[in-house]
Amino acid sequence: MCPHSRFVRLALGEFGLHADLIEERVQDRRHDFLMLNPAGATPVLVEEPRTVVVGAGPISEYLDETRGEALGHARLIQGDPAERAEVRRLMDWFNVKFFTEVTNWLVHEKVTRRYLSAQEGGGGPDMDAVRVARANIRTHLSYIGWLAGSRNWLAGNHLSYADLAAAAQLSCADYLGDVPWAENENAKNWYARIKSRPCFRALLADRIAGMNPHPVYADLDF
Amino acid sequence: MCPHSRFVRLALGEFGLHADLIEERVQDRRHDFLMLNPAGATPVLVEEPRTVVVGAGPISEYLDETRGEALGHARLIQGDPAERAEVRRLMDWFNVKFFTEVTNWLVHEKVTRRYLSAQEGGGGPDMDAVRVARANIRTHLSYIGWLAGSRNWLAGNHLSYADLAAAAQLSCADYLGDVPWAENENAKNWYARIKSRPCFRALLADRIAGMNPHPVYADLDF
Repeated sequence: MCPHSRFVRLALGEFGLHADLIEERVQDRRHDFLMLNPAGATPVLVEEPRTVVVGAGPISEYLDETRGEALGHARLIQGDPAERAEVRRLMDWFNVKFFTEVTNWLVHEKVTRRYLSAQEGGGGPDMDAVRVARANIRTHLSYIGWLAGSRNWLAGNHLSYADLAAAAQLSCADYLGDVPWAENENAKNWYARIKSRPCFRALLADRIAGMNPHPVYADLDF
Repeated sequence: MCPHSRFVRLALGEFGLHADLIEERVQDRRHDFLMLNPAGATPVLVEEPRTVVVGAGPISEYLDETRGEALGHARLIQGDPAERAEVRRLMDWFNVKFFTEVTNWLVHEKVTRRYLSAQEGGGGPDMDAVRVARANIRTHLSYIGWLAGSRNWLAGNHLSYADLAAAAQLSCADYLGDVPWAENENAKNWYARIKSRPCFRALLADRIAGMNPHPVYADLDF
């Protein structure tokens, strides 16, 4: 349920790259993991023999620099510098702003705290925090709908990292049943398009132990 | 006192580019500014006639894409994809992690709240928040010292955006007298090197109305 890792998984899927996924319980602050990323956060991409790339933004730029040209017209960050800046603006919008205002609250309260001891801050969700996230997501959904209604994809004519970042964040909220899809037809149609891409399949098959997804989560015709 | 804007000013300085600076009171949510950046945050770079680039990360990539080659060996993000990923990792470290754990607390409590009405949350600083920031900065200073002690510059052999991002964040804390320089000689020496670069001069001349900088702020031999 780390949306940043989901973003990278979607990107790898679009590149047609296979990666072995290793789940990291970041709160354990495992020594070998901290050696890879002293910030102690996911995602971390390790490319054998010894390249380590840390963080959703750097990983997306790394994949583009090393494999982007091979994608041709399907490149996930393309166009002139201003168009590329727009992709990056929206990547940050979703990976930072949406995450801070929505996903982080929802995942922390509803998922992470289930797996923490009482000392670590575990327990049932703080519904005030959940309500804040649910209020915030409506603004984001409306912005996504506006973008999707005025452009082919969120950042312009082409599917880009911006779409993957938005979809990754939304997919976490959607698992938890916290996306009010009925409120915005444009946003819903855009998500339906991206959800039916092959890169999304693995995400839709994800299951958190002891916590089933909301019924619409894996439904392509939600 | 927006560290992200300071980072961009340092970058423009290294590129030898002049920009007209416009101060934006983001809490006013001015309509014309929201049209440039719906997130309502600084920095925003406008390049006439009509290119708008939003956010420290996208601006740094935009400057590199449009002017990077002209810098040659002084390019601020260079090397192979793994080396470039390291620059980006540290850019994120300082622009996101350091900002969240240190600068945001200090600037919000000590500066922003002076200019807010009581209704907006204005007033004297919450010293608990300031203490948290002061505790956190020690860890970051130690990490900077470790990087500076094992590399020529923070991300490797060359001055990079990583150094500018770290220096921009630190310069805000330094204005407020909240950097315990005596604790880490390597970090201090690295900061002295970057502080004496021409790009830093304009920052050292900055003054917040009614709030003088800490005595060491503009001192190159602190």
